[in-house]
Amino acid sequence: MARITLLGFGNVGQHLFYAFKKAGHQIIQVYNRTFLHVQPFVALFPKTRFVENLHSLSLDSDLYLIAVSDNAIQIISENLPTVNVGGVVAHTSGATSIKVLNTHPNYGVFYPLQTFTAGHEVDFSRIPICIDGDTESTIYRIEKIAQSLSKLVYRINDRQRSILHVAAVFANNFTNHLFAIAAEICRENKIPFDILKPLIAETIHKIQTQSPDLVQTGPAKRKDLNTIQTHLRLLEEQPEFRKIYQMLSDNIIQMHSSKSD
Amino acid sequence: MARITLLGFGNVGQHLFYAFKKAGHQIIQVYNRTFLHVQPFVALFPKTRFVENLHSLSLDSDLYLIAVSDNAIQIISENLPTVNVGGVVAHTSGATSIKVLNTHPNYGVFYPLQTFTAGHEVDFSRIPICIDGDTESTIYRIEKIAQSLSKLVYRINDRQRSILHVAAVFANNFTNHLFAIAAEICRENKIPFDILKPLIAETIHKIQTQSPDLVQTGPAKRKDLNTIQTHLRLLEEQPEFRKIYQMLSDNIIQMHSSKSD
Repeated sequence: MARITLLGFGNVGQHLFYAFKKAGHQIIQVYNRTFLHVQPFVALFPKTRFVENLHSLSLDSDLYLIAVSDNAIQIISENLPTVNVGGVVAHTSGATSIKVLNTHPNYGVFYPLQTFTAGHEVDFSRIPICIDGDTESTIYRIEKIAQSLSKLVYRINDRQRSILHVAAVFANNFTNHLFAIAAEICRENKIPFDILKPLIAETIHKIQTQSPDLVQTGPAKRKDLNTIQTHLRLLEEQPEFRKIYQMLSDNIIQMHSSKSD
Repeated sequence: MARITLLGFGNVGQHLFYAFKKAGHQIIQVYNRTFLHVQPFVALFPKTRFVENLHSLSLDSDLYLIAVSDNAIQIISENLPTVNVGGVVAHTSGATSIKVLNTHPNYGVFYPLQTFTAGHEVDFSRIPICIDGDTESTIYRIEKIAQSLSKLVYRINDRQRSILHVAAVFANNFTNHLFAIAAEICRENKIPFDILKPLIAETIHKIQTQSPDLVQTGPAKRKDLNTIQTHLRLLEEQPEFRKIYQMLSDNIIQMHSSKSD
């Protein structure tokens, strides 16, 4: 059981709060710059101190976890008082270098690779957690805590983590946006979006066991230029969707041509 | 129980063959232009005639279903002898107008909206089938057969079906391609692609109950231009992926800005 100070109580911070508690850890303190935001939690969790001033933190935790937006990590880190010798300062960001924390005696990364939505609980045991640390000993300590939450803990270095975040943007944010485009196209034409959900489910099902490039289908994969032209005409009134259609089709054709050459 | 003639025995044709048989229909005949391709099935299904010449078809089926690639539908239709008065000629294409079949006495569309992969069986009862026909009576006859295969049968007209196919390309082909890009980025950086699968599963899980645009996350949604710039730099050596990243980020920013204005 670790003693944890959570710095930041937004979407990710709150999900971690519950996950740590469930795993039996002690959340000693929660810092949030706006006290009003944590006010409702104060009475619910009497064993946790909620503070809005970094300088009023007690400094005897095993882990100080910075779970704030990327551009605020450095400021929090710089304003954090010198922590206890045994304490590890880590952040939860996929996009921020471990180096922004290198003013602390022990520092690392604790990056849960999942998309968190307020009010939508997720099962932490199946969330990959990517960890890193300044020394083998720090990595080991972060790893123990990560493994108490999840079975999927990966040691990922700074360079890998930043590129992994890019891959995650493609695999999650961008695919979700394509679903949004499909939903918009359906809505405008009075077609229920539900009609596409079995297709979406099957798309995902296939890549559980097969490499996505091997199960690619559709007009671009078939180099069916007639259908592509028809589709581009149908998208004439949505020039942005049309550009996206064109670019992704071109890239599919290119990727699959170079493979069969 | 309907008497069915299947015209085309590729990927979609074979999946339909098994689905019709399972639903208790009689597959009277299967046409395929290359007999060699159907040869292995002849001995397996003695009750079905396999033919490679359209003019040798017997013409007493309830449904003549054309399941060939889009650019071959018209040729099959034109070369099909005049069918029996009660017979309906239909195609299975999302991208082809019902009108290419209007030389037949009764004609329609039977479009299963799913991605079929050879050797990967799918549960037809949960595949949406979009149907259409030249008259209410034809639609009703196609609907009966469709409902014997699937619980999800939708009446969708020509215009809706063509735009639905565009939406399906976004929701399936393009998302799969984004998974392929993510996998490629992982591979190049020695990161297991499996690490992204829980994130992908959660992305899909969320849109089962919520509209995709409402659950959008990521740097573009947050208008986090620093992270976007970092990601574009990381993609410098993959100019095509970089262009796709830029365009999709721009479109997310634009779509979500116009909503909050």
